[in-house]
Amino acid sequence: MKRSLIVQKFGGTSVGTIERIQEVAQQIIRSKDSGHQLVVVVSAMSGETNRLMSLAKQIDNVPTARELDVLLSAGEQVSMALLAMALNQQGYSAVSLTGLQAQIRTNNQHNNATINDIDTSTIEEHLANDQIVIVAGFQGVNDNNEITTLGRGGSDTTAVALAGALKAKECQIFTDVDGVYSCDPRVVTRASRKEVIDFPSMELMASKGAKVLHLPCVQYAWRHNVPLRVLSSFCKGEGTLVTGQEFASPVSGIAIQKSMIMLAFPLSQHELVAKQCQMLGIENECWVFDESSCRLIVKDDDHDKLNLILADRAIEQKKVALLTMVGNNASALSAQSVRILLEVHLSVLHFCEQQHSFTLVMLPDTIDKAANVLHDKYIVTNERLSSGNKQLHLG
Amino acid sequence: MKRSLIVQKFGGTSVGTIERIQEVAQQIIRSKDSGHQLVVVVSAMSGETNRLMSLAKQIDNVPTARELDVLLSAGEQVSMALLAMALNQQGYSAVSLTGLQAQIRTNNQHNNATINDIDTSTIEEHLANDQIVIVAGFQGVNDNNEITTLGRGGSDTTAVALAGALKAKECQIFTDVDGVYSCDPRVVTRASRKEVIDFPSMELMASKGAKVLHLPCVQYAWRHNVPLRVLSSFCKGEGTLVTGQEFASPVSGIAIQKSMIMLAFPLSQHELVAKQCQMLGIENECWVFDESSCRLIVKDDDHDKLNLILADRAIEQKKVALLTMVGNNASALSAQSVRILLEVHLSVLHFCEQQHSFTLVMLPDTIDKAANVLHDKYIVTNERLSSGNKQLHLG
Repeated sequence: MKRSLIVQKFGGTSVGTIERIQEVAQQIIRSKDSGHQLVVVVSAMSGETNRLMSLAKQIDNVPTARELDVLLSAGEQVSMALLAMALNQQGYSAVSLTGLQAQIRTNNQHNNATINDIDTSTIEEHLANDQIVIVAGFQGVNDNNEITTLGRGGSDTTAVALAGALKAKECQIFTDVDGVYSCDPRVVTRASRKEVIDFPSMELMASKGAKVLHLPCVQYAWRHNVPLRVLSSFCKGEGTLVTGQEFASPVSGIAIQKSMIMLAFPLSQHELVAKQCQMLGIENECWVFDESSCRLIVKDDDHDKLNLILADRAIEQKKVALLTMVGNNASALSAQSVRILLEVHLSVLHFCEQQHSFTLVMLPDTIDKAANVLHDKYIVTNERLSSGNKQLHLG
Repeated sequence: MKRSLIVQKFGGTSVGTIERIQEVAQQIIRSKDSGHQLVVVVSAMSGETNRLMSLAKQIDNVPTARELDVLLSAGEQVSMALLAMALNQQGYSAVSLTGLQAQIRTNNQHNNATINDIDTSTIEEHLANDQIVIVAGFQGVNDNNEITTLGRGGSDTTAVALAGALKAKECQIFTDVDGVYSCDPRVVTRASRKEVIDFPSMELMASKGAKVLHLPCVQYAWRHNVPLRVLSSFCKGEGTLVTGQEFASPVSGIAIQKSMIMLAFPLSQHELVAKQCQMLGIENECWVFDESSCRLIVKDDDHDKLNLILADRAIEQKKVALLTMVGNNASALSAQSVRILLEVHLSVLHFCEQQHSFTLVMLPDTIDKAANVLHDKYIVTNERLSSGNKQLHLG
C-alpha cells in the first residue's frame, strides 16, 4: 500500500530554539503516526542567516555571490541535522539531506537561483525505508556541483518544488501565523483567517506585501497545481488552503507595504531609470506619471542599491506606504475607495489600477487607518453578507 | 611552467575572528605572490564546534552519529566561505569546497572516519584556473554521498591527505604555536622549539600528549612521506619541519598528559575490561599490573564513557598525570629518571617502558616539576652539549 505523501515546511521561527525544534518533531510525529510519508523542509534557525550575513559583510560589503551561498547554506545544515536528531531521539528514523544531496538542481544564479529540476531518487530511497526525510530549504546545486541559494524565503519554494516533483498530496507551510488573513491582523483588528484562497488572489497578495507566503512559492504551486496549506507551527487548526485557478471572490483581501520610498524624476529620465532598475534587479512596485515628472516606488531595502546610482538624478524622495486591494472585482473599486478615504480625511497621493487589483500610494502614518476603513467597507461587510446568505441557505 | 604546490592548513584559533581570517588571507597572499599554487584547509572558527555540539547535546546526549556529522561539518563551511570572500575581496580568485565537493572519500565510520582516497580532479581544475582552493577540513563523504567527519582535529589529516594526493611539495600546518617544542613550554619554561623532528619521535610525542599535531596526521604524513611543517599563524618564523623515517636523537622530547584517570580492577577482570574498552573505542594509555590487580589509565573524557559500564567493577579510581620521554635511547633512561625524581621528592606511582619511550604515572600536582627536572637533565644538557660541539667544530 502506498501511503499518502505530504511535504511539510517549517520556517526559521518554527525551528528557532531547541525547544521549538522539539515541538516541530512532535508535529511531524503526529503526521507520521496518522499514516503519512513525510518529507520535511526546514529553514535556518531564526537569526542565523542574519548572523552569517553580518560576518560576510564585515569582510566585504558585496561578498562573492558563490561564497555567500556556501556560507548561508550552512544555516539550514544546522537546523536539519538537529531536527533529524530530535526525531531519532524519539524513535522515529529520520535522515537529513543538503540541497546538493537531495539533488535540488538550480540554474547558476547565485543568491537568487531558480530550481530547474529535482532528482528525487535519493529521497525516494529513504522514504522506501520508512524514513522521514529532512531536506534543507533555500539551497540547491548548479551543474558544476556548486551550492546555490534561492534567495531569502526560498525554503517555501523548495517545499513546493519537492511536493511537485514527488507528486505529494499536499504541501503544508508551517509558519508563525495560523493562516492567510484578509489583511495583516496586526494592522486590521477585524481581519479574519481565510479557510480557502484562490491562487491568483494569493499571488497578488504575496507580490503586494502579504508576507505569509513567498511569491515564487505561490507561483510554483499554482503552475504545478500543488495544493498549498498555510498552518501555524505553534497552535492547532486547519490553516488556509490555497487552491483554485480562478479568482473566487470580488474582493479577496488587502495587502500592505510599509517602508517604501517614492522617487521623482524628470519625465525625460524615465527610460534611463527603468533600464538601470532592471540592470540592478530592483523590483519597482509601480510608476506614477504626471505632465513633467515620473515617480518610481521601491522598497526601502532596494533604495540603498538604487541610491548608489540614481540619488543625484531624483528631484524628490518621499517615504510612502502602499495599500493594494485584490480580487476579481477589486480594480472597479479604486475610485470609490479614494472617495471613501477622503471622507475620513485620508488623502491618497496616487493610485495605480491593475486588472484584478488597485494600489494606493499614501503617507506612512495614514496607511493603518485606511486599511481598516476599506477592510470594514469591502471585506467585513462582504463576509457578513455571505454569512447571512449562508444562513439563508441553511434556513 | 608548473609551479610548486603547497598545502596550508589553518586551525580554529587562526580563523577564530574576522580579523584573524583577514590575517590568514594575508599569509596566503604572501605565499601565492611568492609563486606557489595553493590548496588551503581550514577548521571551523574556534568555539563553533563546541557551540554546535552543545546544541546537539540539548537534544540527545548521544546524538545520531550520521546527523552529528551533518551538523558539525557546517562549521568549516562557514570559515571556508569567509576566507574565500576575504581573498576575493583582496583581488585573489579563491573558491571553497566542502569535503563532499572536494571528493574526500572516507569509510563509513561517522564521527571518526578514515580517508580512503581523494578524487582531486575538481581541485586540479580550479588550480589550473589559477585559483586558490579552500577546502573544508575535518569532513569527507562516504560511498552513499553522506557527510562524514574525521573526529576532532581531523583538519590536519585532511591537509596531509590532500598534500599526499596532490603530490604537494610541503604540507604546512599553521597553528597557535610557532613549532614543535621539546616539551610543552607552558610547563617547562626552558623548552625550546625544534627546527627538525623525525617522524617516529613526532608520532610518539603526538600519541602521548603533544597537542601540536593530531596523531593520524603525523602517521599519514609519515606513511606517505609528506614533509610536514608546523608554523605559527600569528608570527613569522620557519617553524618545525617534520621529516625523516628514523629516530634522529637519543632524547627527542617529553610529552605530558594531564587529566587522566587510573582505574584499578581485580586481576581476574583484565580481559573483560580490555574487551569492553575496545568495544567502546576507548584508548587506554597504559596498563599496570601487580599480583592482585590491574590498573588501566584512560583520558578523563573517555572515563565518562567507561563509567557507564565499568564504574561498579573498579576497586579504585585516582586522578593521575603521565609523563612520556621519547627518543631513540629514551627507554634506557627510565630507571635513572625515577631515581632522579625521587631525589627531589617526586614519587612515581608506576612506570611503563616501550621500545623508544617510557611513561611515568604520577600524581597530577607533581607532573610540572617532574617535567622540568627531566627536561633540564636530558634535554637542556644535551642541547648544551651539541651547541658546545657545534662551537667546537666552528672554532
